[in-house]
Formats: sequence, C-alpha cells, structure tokens
Amino acid sequence: MTAAAPAPISKAERSERAKRAFDHLAAPQDALVLFDDQFIFYYCGFAFFPTERPIGLIITREGERILFVPRLEREHAQQTSEAERVEAYPEFPGQRHPMLQLADLLTELGLETAHIGVDHDGYLSVMGYDGPPLSEVLPGARVSRVSRALDHQMALKSEAEVALIKESAYWGAQAHRLLQDYTRAGANETEVEARATKEATAAMIAALGDSYRGQNRWMSGAVALYRGQIGPNSALPHAMTTGATFQPGDTLVTGAGAAVWGYISELERTMFVGEASAEQRRFFQHMLNMQDIAFEALKPGATCASVDAAVRAYFEREQLWDHWRHHVGHSLGQRIHESPFLDIGDERVLEPGLVLSVEPGLYVPGLGGFRHSDTILITPSGMELLTDYPRDLASLTLS
Amino acid sequence: MTAAAPAPISKAERSERAKRAFDHLAAPQDALVLFDDQFIFYYCGFAFFPTERPIGLIITREGERILFVPRLEREHAQQTSEAERVEAYPEFPGQRHPMLQLADLLTELGLETAHIGVDHDGYLSVMGYDGPPLSEVLPGARVSRVSRALDHQMALKSEAEVALIKESAYWGAQAHRLLQDYTRAGANETEVEARATKEATAAMIAALGDSYRGQNRWMSGAVALYRGQIGPNSALPHAMTTGATFQPGDTLVTGAGAAVWGYISELERTMFVGEASAEQRRFFQHMLNMQDIAFEALKPGATCASVDAAVRAYFEREQLWDHWRHHVGHSLGQRIHESPFLDIGDERVLEPGLVLSVEPGLYVPGLGGFRHSDTILITPSGMELLTDYPRDLASLTLS
Repeated sequence: MTAAAPAPISKAERSERAKRAFDHLAAPQDALVLFDDQFIFYYCGFAFFPTERPIGLIITREGERILFVPRLEREHAQQTSEAERVEAYPEFPGQRHPMLQLADLLTELGLETAHIGVDHDGYLSVMGYDGPPLSEVLPGARVSRVSRALDHQMALKSEAEVALIKESAYWGAQAHRLLQDYTRAGANETEVEARATKEATAAMIAALGDSYRGQNRWMSGAVALYRGQIGPNSALPHAMTTGATFQPGDTLVTGAGAAVWGYISELERTMFVGEASAEQRRFFQHMLNMQDIAFEALKPGATCASVDAAVRAYFEREQLWDHWRHHVGHSLGQRIHESPFLDIGDERVLEPGLVLSVEPGLYVPGLGGFRHSDTILITPSGMELLTDYPRDLASLTLS
Repeated sequence: MTAAAPAPISKAERSERAKRAFDHLAAPQDALVLFDDQFIFYYCGFAFFPTERPIGLIITREGERILFVPRLEREHAQQTSEAERVEAYPEFPGQRHPMLQLADLLTELGLETAHIGVDHDGYLSVMGYDGPPLSEVLPGARVSRVSRALDHQMALKSEAEVALIKESAYWGAQAHRLLQDYTRAGANETEVEARATKEATAAMIAALGDSYRGQNRWMSGAVALYRGQIGPNSALPHAMTTGATFQPGDTLVTGAGAAVWGYISELERTMFVGEASAEQRRFFQHMLNMQDIAFEALKPGATCASVDAAVRAYFEREQLWDHWRHHVGHSLGQRIHESPFLDIGDERVLEPGLVLSVEPGLYVPGLGGFRHSDTILITPSGMELLTDYPRDLASLTLS
C-alpha cells in the first residue's frame, strides 16, 4: 500500500471542475444539463444506482450545481452530493413526466431560451425508461451535445486523481497475486476468482479504514478475475465466464483492479498452466514486443493514432494480421473505458495527465489469447507505469 | 431446488420472438435495428459486455437476424449468438466510423429508404463513444423509436421464462437464508454479503451443473446483500454500501436474487438486529399491510395504476405521506427493472404472464427503511408468488 491512503477528491476540486467545464466547450453555453451518472459523479460527487427514474445535473455559467432527482433519492443526494441545490420530482412515470418537471425547473432558472450543452439530448436508460428529448420539452432553448468536450476534461487527470488510480493499481496487483497463487490445474475459475477477490477486498478495507468507499459502477472492492478467458476460450477478447476448470496447458488471460473513491486501474496478464509450448512462447514474445513498442511510442506530442500505427506496423512486419482483434488501448480512471483511444482513427495529441491502458493483443483460435494490460500516465517527458506486476514468461508460468 | 433444472430459452423461442416483434408495433416497419444489449440478448441470445464499440442487431421483416459487431467480437458472436448472420467492422473509432459501416450494411440489405424501427436512434454508451444518429447516416430511411412496443413484448413472459425466474427465486432465497444466518451485531456488511453470496453461488453451480450460465448484466451467481441499507442508512431506498458494522437495534433492508440463463428475480426483506422497538414494529406492520393490499389488487384486467392507487389510499388513511418515497413495484425478469411499473401514472392493464416486484416501502429518517419485495406472476385468476421466504416479524428478528 502507499505510505498514506490517498484522500478522496476534494469539494474544491469538484467545484472547480464544474466551473472549468465551460472552458472546454467549442461554442459558449449558458448552462450544462448532464444525465450520465459518471458525469454527475465527476462534477458533484453523487454516486448512485441509475435506474429508469431520470436524474440530471444542471450546471450554471456561474458554476452552481442543481441536482434533479426522484423523491426516493432526495435525502441521499442532500447527504452525499456536493450540489448547491437538490430538487426532487415525485416518481417515474408518475402523474406528470419528470422531463416536463425538469423543463419547469430550467424555466424557473431563466434558461428556457438559453444555449444548453448536454451529454445526451434526454435521459437514457436500459430499464424501461421512455420519454422525450430535452430539446422537445424546452423548445425555445438551443440544445447542443458537448459530451466530447467533457470527455476531454475528464481525461486529463489531476494529482489527486492519479494518487487514487495508483492506490487502485496497488490493490489490483494484490488481488492478482492471490489469483495467480490460487490458480492450478483442477481448480474452478469461479471459486478462484471469488477467493482472491474476497481476501484482497478484506485486506484493502482493513488498510484504508472505515471511511473507504468504492463508488465505482464497474468494480467493487479489489477484484481479480478471468471472465472466461481460459484455454481456447481466451482467444475471445471479450469472453464471458463459463465456470471452467483449469487444465494443464491452458493459456489464461486475467484482469484485476480495485475501486478507490470512484477511481480504478487495469492490470491484465497472460499466464500458462504448466510449461508453455513453443507456440505459446512465440505468441507471448510477440505480445511483449508489441507492448514494448507501444510504451516507446507513448509521449507527449505524439498522437493516439501514432501509437496504434506503431503496433500495427509490427503486425504487418511479422505477418500477424490473422491474430489482430483490437486497438492498443483506451483512457480510463473513473469509467472503465474512457476517451481518447489508442486507435489509428483517434488523432488526439497525448498530453501529460492522460491515463491509458496499454494492451495490444494476439488471438489464436484453438490456442488462446495473448494480452498484458498495464495502466500508464503520460508525463512531461514520456510515460510512467502505474501498474506494477511481473510481465515475463517465467513469473507467469504456474507450476 | 426445483425437481429438474430448467432449460435455457430455446433457439425456437428466440427466433419466434424476432418474428413476432413486428406484431407489437403501432406502425408497420420494414426492419428493426436494436442497439440495447438487453434487446440483443432477448432476440438472438448474444450475451456480451457492452463498451464504446457499437453493437447492433438488424431484424428483417422475415425474421432474419444480422448481428453487427466489432472485429474483436466476431468469433464470440458466431459461436454464441443465434443470429443467422454476423458482420464485423474493424474497430471504434477506427478509420471509418462504425455507424457509416452499419449504414452500408443496411443499404446492402435494401433498407436505405425503408421504415426502420429502433430502440434508440443511434448507439448509446457510457464509455466514451461518440457518433451520429442512425437517421443521420441513413437519411433516406424513416427511423422511428419502437422501444415501448418491444418492452411490452418482453414484459409478457413465456412458460420457459417463468421457469427460469422461479429457479432464480429459489437460489435467491438460499442466498438470503445464509445472509440472515451470518448477520449478527458486530459483523461487517461486506464480509457477510461476500460469504453468503460465495456459498450460495457454489451450491447453485453444483446443483445446476457445468452448463450453467448467468448471462445477466445485473447479477452474477446467487447473491444476497445489504447495499448499505443498515440502521439509519436504510432510510435511503437506494443507499450505497458503506462497509457498516451491524449494531443492536439496527433496521436492515436486504436484497437477494440469482442469475439463471439471463433471468433474475427479486427478494427483499426488512429485518431487525435484536428485538424490534414499538416504533419499528409499528412501521413493519404498516409495510406488511400495504404489501397485502397490493397483493389483493394484482389481477388481470386491473391497471398498474390501480395497484399503486390502492396503496396510496393507505398512506392517506394512515397519514403516512411523510414516509412515502416511491411507487409499488416494477416488472422484471431479464432486466432488473422493466416496464410496466406499478405506478399511478402507468395505465397499462395487467395481463397473465407479467412478472412484477411488489415492494411498497416506508422510510423513517433516523430509524430506517421498511420494505419487503416479492416477485409475483399475474395468472388468469390473480397472482402467484414466485419468491418464497418468511415475511413475519418473528422470522426476521435476529437474535
């Protein structure tokens, strides 16, 4: 663990984010209305379980934050968010659609004919929500999507954010160590994951103390898992769990991280159950070479695309295209995947403060997948590894 | 466990769903294009991890299903989905936006000027995706939102679906029994949840066999938890976990369920650490009375709104409005919350085959929350409880 547990993001930092959000926009806006739970947490610290009941955050030009929630979240929002004001509507669907009540609130704030930047034009949900776009219930306003600009703000991490991501990386590595220790031929994927995750989570909570909160949508505690990437099934980059039993000769692809005050990291390793075959060793070495090429290319001033292009050149040179499945990596920190992407189509320039996964992969049907993922920080002079775990073949061969 | 483990949804049933989807639409469509991972699973059985890389399912009027996926999901989709055809694009963002490639595919299918029903006009994501609406990349087509009609189809459960939900309810109750057994003053929320969940999951996997898959976005294995609803914090209906230690006198609100081939159930109970006080008993009894009122009102031909209204009349009669936070319940099965809702604003008529949670609640700041949730099936003559767990005070008082 780091010398002292890092502090959660301060109220001052979140308040500053809300004021600064307007600096990132291509066109001036009078206010922002955000529906995505991750933007809401980012700007006002409200961590909640999104459902079919719309929740929205209004940010005025002066940086005042007004959180619009269903009645059942009122006290929760008042107690745990940093919004200057909380307004509640009774229920969804309710007797009057919540979006109409949001339009009332915006009108009361003098924003009925304003320029309003939104992440989405209306509320989104995967739980039976149905309702009109904001532009329809507030027809006098000019509603524009600005999520790309806000993604850009979110991508540049502060010192406090990097400290939380490092803490996450530390606990992810602890969980991964346990996962590796408990994995052996004959053991069951689900049991090994559950044991490593439970023990690493308990150790993390004991170390970080009672005030610790995970506050992340994708991870809870300190986790390590396989997600079905075992043996031939590891040739599927996004396999789903199958409750497999480990077999001698299996190629394994892992994943580990931890949720610390809303922030996460990503650590993945390719491992082998028993001595790797010549073919496994060959693909493992190609994968290591490609990750080294990406590390070399990651520096301020380079583009995201150039990093992907450097790795693609290796695929070309070594005639490995049959085994290509995806780009080199993605930003992360609060969301498990954030923009920008280390992708040939992403021309954004790398800047100090970006945190990215570096995970070029090779996939061989019948044999398995070959992918390490590390989390790195772009620094003024190059990059810094935030994850710390062995990556060589000997260290990742299970006896 | 039920006498024999129920089978997953058959290929014939999913294929029939795709053909029948068109019967539910208010206006005729030539094809459907669906982006929501839950609709995609419902119509073609592809369970996947949604990211910033768009995935879409095209369903033609003839019921042919064409799954549009990123390269990294091609083999996964070919091996595990029931789509008649899988088409892959290289990557997002990539050199050409995936939505333009989807437009190419729709054009190739002769749909460039068709009437196309969509769940959303374009891909949605919470992971840094950015892209145009479908209506923009296919300007000759007439794109209409039909998600409400598809929600209606999804809400009416088949016998095979009800069997899976019952199996889920059985394992949810097993997990809840363990949660109750392990909860005592001085124990830690996170540890009790982890232990109950791990043991119930192991028992379920042992009983259902190696072929078992969870395939659910919200639950994994058989789970029981508190999600922070402990002591005064249980007065927040959607509290988040705090890693609390149980104290004598605490009011507790639980949650339990299990993922079985994509289907889930919901079981929640109000419990007390030690003898309940007079005030705790009073609110507990009101809550039981309200759940009984809802059970009485649930029958085919009644509206969703009428059930909520019956419970609201009790709030009025007993002067309990200060403690009201939400409507009576929601549909569920595949999604953790589905439409329709037992809400005063939902005029849909109850029909046999609907599966709903019944969970009127009372919330008392400083004291706690009072809510049982059971999962029920609307039958031709009334309703059937699918969850089976004691609901009386004595059974839920922890010594």
